[in-house]
Amino acid sequence: MSELRYNHLKDTWTIIAEERARRPHDYATHIHEEEKGDISLCPFEYGNEDKTPPEIFAIREPGTLPNTPGWKVRVIPNKYPAVRIETPPDRIGECFYDKVMGFGAHEVIVETPDHFKHIQNFSKEELNNMFLTYKERIKSLSGDIRIRYIHIFKNHGKEAGKSLVHSHSQLIALPKIPKIVETQINQSREYYREKERCLICDEISQELKEVKRVIYENDSFVVLCPYASLFPFEIRIVPKFHSHDFTAINDQQLNDLSDATQIAVNKLYKTLVNPPFNMILYTSPPIREIPAKSDYFYHIDRFYHWHIEILPRIATLAGFELGTGYYINPTPPEDAAKFLREVLL
Amino acid sequence: MSELRYNHLKDTWTIIAEERARRPHDYATHIHEEEKGDISLCPFEYGNEDKTPPEIFAIREPGTLPNTPGWKVRVIPNKYPAVRIETPPDRIGECFYDKVMGFGAHEVIVETPDHFKHIQNFSKEELNNMFLTYKERIKSLSGDIRIRYIHIFKNHGKEAGKSLVHSHSQLIALPKIPKIVETQINQSREYYREKERCLICDEISQELKEVKRVIYENDSFVVLCPYASLFPFEIRIVPKFHSHDFTAINDQQLNDLSDATQIAVNKLYKTLVNPPFNMILYTSPPIREIPAKSDYFYHIDRFYHWHIEILPRIATLAGFELGTGYYINPTPPEDAAKFLREVLL
Repeated sequence: MSELRYNHLKDTWTIIAEERARRPHDYATHIHEEEKGDISLCPFEYGNEDKTPPEIFAIREPGTLPNTPGWKVRVIPNKYPAVRIETPPDRIGECFYDKVMGFGAHEVIVETPDHFKHIQNFSKEELNNMFLTYKERIKSLSGDIRIRYIHIFKNHGKEAGKSLVHSHSQLIALPKIPKIVETQINQSREYYREKERCLICDEISQELKEVKRVIYENDSFVVLCPYASLFPFEIRIVPKFHSHDFTAINDQQLNDLSDATQIAVNKLYKTLVNPPFNMILYTSPPIREIPAKSDYFYHIDRFYHWHIEILPRIATLAGFELGTGYYINPTPPEDAAKFLREVLL
Repeated sequence: MSELRYNHLKDTWTIIAEERARRPHDYATHIHEEEKGDISLCPFEYGNEDKTPPEIFAIREPGTLPNTPGWKVRVIPNKYPAVRIETPPDRIGECFYDKVMGFGAHEVIVETPDHFKHIQNFSKEELNNMFLTYKERIKSLSGDIRIRYIHIFKNHGKEAGKSLVHSHSQLIALPKIPKIVETQINQSREYYREKERCLICDEISQELKEVKRVIYENDSFVVLCPYASLFPFEIRIVPKFHSHDFTAINDQQLNDLSDATQIAVNKLYKTLVNPPFNMILYTSPPIREIPAKSDYFYHIDRFYHWHIEILPRIATLAGFELGTGYYINPTPPEDAAKFLREVLL
């Protein structure tokens, strides 16, 4: 059983994931377990549905059965989960230390049956299906009151932590709101308390005026390189409309999100020649309580603004970043945006 | 001129380092600029002292001149500094955003003249010289009241961000206390306020009782795998005596630190077969003001405890870690400590 342990000095939590347990020699040989060209071994191929645990959700051709071919997007439990829904989220004191048992969900979202298709090759329909699946899974898991946050991310390329070649995203639902999400929420709340305006709405209006860090926009979304990008060529995809909750997205907005993502990913692909990257969705934690009247004014739907981040992994995080939590970025975001804006698709 | 930009949403700072500026194609080819076997090109060799900026500090054979051979450890300014002492640390509002100009110091500590010697091969005398140099440089830079923190780290191996093969550490002095250091200070202060005991002193006494996460100890230091290790096989080297300030270390303690480090590094080398790692020194920021009487009880010398961290880079930080600030560690620290304890040197 895995467990979350509190790192008191750094005020964060580590999942000690025994299901994924590794002895010293495993690290040298198994860090990237990519199948070696033999597609028949890939568990995410048509016909290999029995090589994974049974599917949780799928978008399918009409008339096809679960756990058979015919799916367009397929969601399955992670075979080596970091957290499990069967584990009660017990809070336990261990002498001097604190832990929470490894409750949660760890799912794999296989975005295409095509082994050789990666996100830069996805059609708008395929991106729509991917985001629709994100939305459905978050909505479904939000029903479990023990779940405090649902984190969805995609690792593209080995250096970004991808362990299987076949294109997929991951979902990890947690019994705690993670540190970075909590920071974003707190920072947005403080900003709102002071100004009664949303931090990201203000940022967008500033960026659309200044233009120099904007890469692309359509009716609903703007694609930009953030002012204080932690990573070179970092990209943020932000709804121009205020919304704290990704799952509230409507069909037109979903189309526009797929359009913005397709352009962002392809511009990155061309500019940096298929760089590894992480794509991360930040959205509101599930909200279950109606706040007291006095607090309602500061309710999360007013001050939080969901968004997607793309972090290219072309520079190595080293002793500076890991020791300080600050970052060194050798490419000013204004320059990065210019390159990305100007590259032709 | 570089600048520190505030990332409002994540509450951290990025150094936009134009001196290290990179265009898209630089990333593909220049990520790891290791010299290709031709030692004569290495700027850290005897006889190549003129290929670096003039030295700031050195431990030398008696009678040898600065910027000539005969040094044992040599400190020079980084040729591509992230921050510069000539830049005034001006705080500037940029419309909606905040920045601090890139003031600071960025130094390279060349730990040996031997191109092929790495930290696992250092003698105790060589480690003593390295740590003595850390101490001298921190003491010297603490004199500049504009410097708020002095961060020293070592990147070992390409995957840990090392860009030149020849063994070296780096020092970056900053006009702000970095986020992670501030978190450590705040967490230690809160713990002290509640208990009037030092967090790390309590941790050590617990660990020495439980034994299972301890790898080694001598008179002054304990080497252990922290309870909530963020990284697999993470190691902490901690003074058993309470001290907030690394520069207060005496000669006997320095010897013991070199002993503990030599054992930690060699056990890691053997257990994981020369893994890449970052070594990070956490110590008190320079203290210049005597606190008001009422605050003295909570002065940093009471609650902070300096220490060294070794973070093996054998697993990739991916979309989970970068998006949540939580970590997944597949090797329980109890298991890691057992492997490290039992490996023979």
